[in-house]
Amino acid sequence: MPQLAFQDYYPDHLSYCYGCGRLNEHGHQIKSYWADDGETTVCVFEPLPYHTAIPGYVYGGVLASVIDCHGTGSAAAAAFRAEGRAMDTEPAQRFLTASLKVNYLKPTPLDPNRPLHLRGRIREVKGRKVIVDIDVSVGRDGSGEICVQGEVIAVRVPESFVVEAMAKAEQSRSDN
Amino acid sequence: MPQLAFQDYYPDHLSYCYGCGRLNEHGHQIKSYWADDGETTVCVFEPLPYHTAIPGYVYGGVLASVIDCHGTGSAAAAAFRAEGRAMDTEPAQRFLTASLKVNYLKPTPLDPNRPLHLRGRIREVKGRKVIVDIDVSVGRDGSGEICVQGEVIAVRVPESFVVEAMAKAEQSRSDN
Repeated sequence: MPQLAFQDYYPDHLSYCYGCGRLNEHGHQIKSYWADDGETTVCVFEPLPYHTAIPGYVYGGVLASVIDCHGTGSAAAAAFRAEGRAMDTEPAQRFLTASLKVNYLKPTPLDPNRPLHLRGRIREVKGRKVIVDIDVSVGRDGSGEICVQGEVIAVRVPESFVVEAMAKAEQSRSDN
Repeated sequence: MPQLAFQDYYPDHLSYCYGCGRLNEHGHQIKSYWADDGETTVCVFEPLPYHTAIPGYVYGGVLASVIDCHGTGSAAAAAFRAEGRAMDTEPAQRFLTASLKVNYLKPTPLDPNRPLHLRGRIREVKGRKVIVDIDVSVGRDGSGEICVQGEVIAVRVPESFVVEAMAKAEQSRSDN
């Protein structure tokens, strides 16, 4: 795996996401990478003991969150790749979720020794839109049974939003 | 609105959900009620300042979480109603999400003075399955523009799961 996660390339003012922002100290700090196969993307996530649905199983909203951010992260990586340039080149590209689908095939065990493994497959890169399919299994190596399947339709954040986010991030810093 | 939320009727051992469990002190503590019209369901949720996507907007994973738990709560309430009995009667009914769809129509402003308003519509109650459609707007009274639409297909938790959850909740209590 490369040293930096996809999310580590997001510019500072777009790095406050509760799911994956490295500057959101309260958040999940989700990290995504290209897999060794160079084609799919992976994320390993350790749910906290209180991320429960019914006792012993992972809460569906946390699963949806990890799928969401692994999806938008994978979308950004795929978009850079489609343009033939590295993620640390300008202009930055940041994706938001337009549509999220999650199928909970079976309850996902919450086991401190077996983190969640997400595998993303880029289905389509077209204009501002990227579609990513994601399988979630339990266990660090990804060989576990698939408990959850997700689909993320991600769209590139318009420039006007990026400017606004930058202003709000600045404001937030000066308020603190 | 009635005094107790749907989630307040869940038995203790099924009340540790990170989204809506009243016994999960780290969780979102989502609460759902029948609306004044007696047909739809409502939930008012105040995102925390760090529940951000890009600065100024609510994180999609938190929106998915609130939709998820408002959906399963509404499903339970609808199932009790379909059986013509009150939520405090036995046997308890608890639903989990089989499938979640979320369409983010537009970015949802994160405004401390304007909580999220969720409106649930029971589309179908059939056997162990309940389908709930949910609109999310910004502002306590629900008159705001709809930013997000969700669909929750909820299924009643099998009895074997309830027994297992009860044992795990007991174990967790005796461990602490």
